[in-house]
Amino acid sequence: MAHLTASVEYGIHCLLWLAAADDAALSSRELAELQGVSPTFVAKIFPKLEKAGLVTASNGLRGGYRLAKPASRISVLEIVDAIEGPKPLFDCQEIRGRCALFEGRPPKWATSGVCSIHAVMLKAERAMRETLAAETLGDLAARVERKAPASFSGEAQAWLGGRTSTRGAKRAPRKREAPS
Amino acid sequence: MAHLTASVEYGIHCLLWLAAADDAALSSRELAELQGVSPTFVAKIFPKLEKAGLVTASNGLRGGYRLAKPASRISVLEIVDAIEGPKPLFDCQEIRGRCALFEGRPPKWATSGVCSIHAVMLKAERAMRETLAAETLGDLAARVERKAPASFSGEAQAWLGGRTSTRGAKRAPRKREAPS
Repeated sequence: MAHLTASVEYGIHCLLWLAAADDAALSSRELAELQGVSPTFVAKIFPKLEKAGLVTASNGLRGGYRLAKPASRISVLEIVDAIEGPKPLFDCQEIRGRCALFEGRPPKWATSGVCSIHAVMLKAERAMRETLAAETLGDLAARVERKAPASFSGEAQAWLGGRTSTRGAKRAPRKREAPS
Repeated sequence: MAHLTASVEYGIHCLLWLAAADDAALSSRELAELQGVSPTFVAKIFPKLEKAGLVTASNGLRGGYRLAKPASRISVLEIVDAIEGPKPLFDCQEIRGRCALFEGRPPKWATSGVCSIHAVMLKAERAMRETLAAETLGDLAARVERKAPASFSGEAQAWLGGRTSTRGAKRAPRKREAPS
């Protein structure tokens, strides 16, 4: 199994759409349908992004999610941490203290400081996290925009506009609930 | 769950003992008992290390595992890869091609090359792997040796010597089997 789950991929894709949405609020259902992915799955990601202060939610007919700050100020690491929570690369079991020679009473030199193996893993984890911290949602959005033809953004806006304009017709807005 | 399993910790600790064993062959059972960890668990790690060319196995009364090359030529990355196998940081589901606007026929621009999100994750994974590749078992062994008092190495050799000298008394060597 990969270290980072599919929720990270889904979450970043959703945030890229919000970055392109020009401050229009989009529901997690609209974002899921636009991307052809499970609305239930996407709905579970947004409370985490909201809790981490990456998106804000608004209710009502025009409600939905918006980025809470400019895409250039949201790092990929923040998104990963928001979705995955604390998830170490390596979970040290401290087996160094169990050596039979210590007979259950490991001396201080054997267990003081960080285990040398753990230290290497922490260094590798830091290198990984620094790379993710150096990339922003804005960098990603710019790269994705360069790939797509000029007409695509307008087509997407039109598709989303069609959805949001018929929101009331499809179902009544539910007050005091996170936008689904 | 952490990305790297406890097998990596156990495996590296065992290899550190082999690095300190001065070319004496140690069975996985002796290594497990010395470290106070499950012999069954350790026994499952060694065939992987052997397959990857990091240890060699010999049979008979004096049989066991030895490092297949100097500790300074075994990188932590090689050990991790031997034990964990191919295990990506991020498993891209390529959801970029599922956009509703494509109606099941994503255009080439949408799916060509590596997904921008995946590219960032691959960069982070490379940074992590490069850190692990830059550390060797020899580096780790030197660090561990500096921590322990001068007498510890002799005590460990005596403990292991006690075990290996009574091997025949405990059980007959089984031919054509990996040393357990």
